Formats: sequence, structure tokens, C-alpha cells
Amino acid sequence: MFISFEGIDGSGKSTQVDVVAEWLHSMGREVLVVREPGATPLSEAVRGILLDAPYSIDPTAELLLFCASRRQLVETVIRPSLAAGTIVLCDRYADSSTAYQGFGRGIPLELVEQANMLATGGLQPDRTFYIDISIEESQRRAQRRGEQRLDRMESAGAEFYDRVRTGYHAIAIHNERFVRLDGTEPIQGIFEKIKDTIRQYL
Amino acid sequence: MFISFEGIDGSGKSTQVDVVAEWLHSMGREVLVVREPGATPLSEAVRGILLDAPYSIDPTAELLLFCASRRQLVETVIRPSLAAGTIVLCDRYADSSTAYQGFGRGIPLELVEQANMLATGGLQPDRTFYIDISIEESQRRAQRRGEQRLDRMESAGAEFYDRVRTGYHAIAIHNERFVRLDGTEPIQGIFEKIKDTIRQYL
Repeated sequence: MFISFEGIDGSGKSTQVDVVAEWLHSMGREVLVVREPGATPLSEAVRGILLDAPYSIDPTAELLLFCASRRQLVETVIRPSLAAGTIVLCDRYADSSTAYQGFGRGIPLELVEQANMLATGGLQPDRTFYIDISIEESQRRAQRRGEQRLDRMESAGAEFYDRVRTGYHAIAIHNERFVRLDGTEPIQGIFEKIKDTIRQYL
Repeated sequence: MFISFEGIDGSGKSTQVDVVAEWLHSMGREVLVVREPGATPLSEAVRGILLDAPYSIDPTAELLLFCASRRQLVETVIRPSLAAGTIVLCDRYADSSTAYQGFGRGIPLELVEQANMLATGGLQPDRTFYIDISIEESQRRAQRRGEQRLDRMESAGAEFYDRVRTGYHAIAIHNERFVRLDGTEPIQGIFEKIKDTIRQYL
């Protein structure tokens, strides 16, 4: 079983990934948590470029870097783990490129899809939990966390994030695997809904 | 005018890039020399990953990294320079991905073409000088240069390079912009032939 978690920064998806992993683990399941971009030495090197580059990166170059990282992750980690029967929980996956590089940066969606296909070879999650919060809530949470320094993606501005969020809504409409969750609900309430969905597969 | 130089390692293409640049410069032309992967801060960072990674890189991830580097080079350096009337000499370009990642690594050619299109947006060289030497000659020259340590691409083995060379021959047949040159001829003789071709454009 392959599950991805999507949402803008501060949505609480990483928290949900952690509690879901713990819950599955407590039931004796083999679980692997991976995050994008990252989780392989190559992907971590690419992550360093993507989030910390002091120069501007062309949007399509950015897309290709995310997809290079994703490809390495899919081939060396996700596919072998799924083949071994492990449940894979992915904090961001191909939908992030559609939302951020496609809707956010304005790269034509058919090009984003081509790049994603090169990266994933068509491997899609069985379920994608999309945790939705408003841009204002995302900014409030970033301030509460006391973030002094935003990385390159986070500093892209409210209009960019508004397009990203619109993108997620568009993807959700066109993909049955999407489960939209209200990110302003309590953590436990969101977790219960995720558990209900996953239980149908176990 | 946009000119690329292709060939396996040791073919002498970098030497030709240098003498051609000097010749064009001596005639008062604006010339820019770029090498792939590299020539932008992003591309140099990617180059470091590609040539020195101590872990194995999935072939398609490798392709996507080369194309990310190429995209940044095309958009931030090559297109603006061509628009300003500068002659751009490129030491390797998209054909290298077709030869190395397509024919060499065995990635389906239509996928390599998709990735190259994402990288170049369709920007093709006006002329491509392909300097051909045998695999044996390439190895002899590497030994003569006293190379102690081969980078990740160079250490891929003779069979790999044989497929790459076959790839270059296939590309040359299908692309009129290709000018095949015998890399065992003296440097000056190859240079004269390149000059004859370029003069038709000046």
C-alpha cells in the first residue's frame, strides 16, 4: 500500500505522517516513511540545491530537479519497499510538482505530467490525503513556529501559494484517490478520518 | 549562431572548441564558450553530483539531472547570448543525452527526447561538429593523459562507450546539422574543416 500526503506548508501533513506511521507500526505492519525531496543520498543533495540555492532557478529546471530526486526515490526505495509488502507513507509526491511547479510556477500541465511520468514510471499512490488550510492559516502557523528564515520555496509569496492551493483543489476533483481533509480540525480528528480510510485497505 | 561539439572523451572536441573560439574572437566576433554539464552555478552544483556521486544513480534520474542543468544553461545563458548576437559554442548539448543516456544507458529514445524537449524548449544548434574516434583510441589518449582517477561517467566501461558511439552515428545519419569529423586527423586539419563550415554562416 502506497499513501501520499499533500498540502501547503503548515497544513500538518508531516504530523499526520508520523502518527499514521506509529499507528500502523503498533499493529505490527512494516511501514516506511519518506519525504520529498529527500530520503536518498542523491535526493538529499538535490534538496540542498532546491531549498538553499542563493541564485534564481528556472521553473522548468526546478521541475526537472524535483523529478530527478523523485525518480531516484521511486526506483531505489519506494518500488523495492512496496514489492516487499511494506506500507509506504510519502510526505509529498508527484502531485506536489503539479501543484507547485504547474499551478504555482505556471509550467504547462502537460509538461509537468511528462516530467512526472519520467520520474514515477506511472507509479501512483493508492490514496492521497490532502490536508487543506488557507494561506492565512499557513502564514499564522509559520509565525507561531517562529520561523526566522524561510527557504527558497517558502519565500515565494502569498499569490504563489494561492495558485498552489487552487491547483490542489483541481487535482482533487480529477483524482478519486484524493481524500480532502480540513486542516483546521484538531489533529486527532483528522487522524481518525485517515484511519477510517486506511482500514478499508487492511 | 549556435554551434555544439560532440564526441566521446578524448575525441579532442574541447581543444577544437578553444581554437574555434580564439579564431572567431580574432575576427572581432562576440563568442561565448559553455560546457555541459556546467557553466551556471546550478549546473556546476548538478555537475558535482553527476560526476562525483559515491552512490549509484538511476539512469533516468541521471537523465533528469543532466536536463535540469541544461534547462538552466539554455534559459539563463544560451538564449540571452544568442539574442544579443553572440556566437555560442557548446561543449556537449542535448545530443550527449541521446548518445549517453539513450543509447549508452538504454533509456527509451522517446523518453530521452521528451526530457531534452523539457530542457531545450526545442532550441537546436545550427551546426553540430561530431568528432569521431574509436573506443581504443579514446582509452589510449586517457592513458597518455595519465589519468589516475576516472569520474563516474568515464568509468562506465568499453561496452557502454561502444553503445554511445553507435548512438552518435545514428544521430548523425538522422540530423543534417551534424558534421562528422575524423578525430584521428591532426588538430589543424580538423580545425580547417570546422572553419570551412562556419565560414558559410558568417
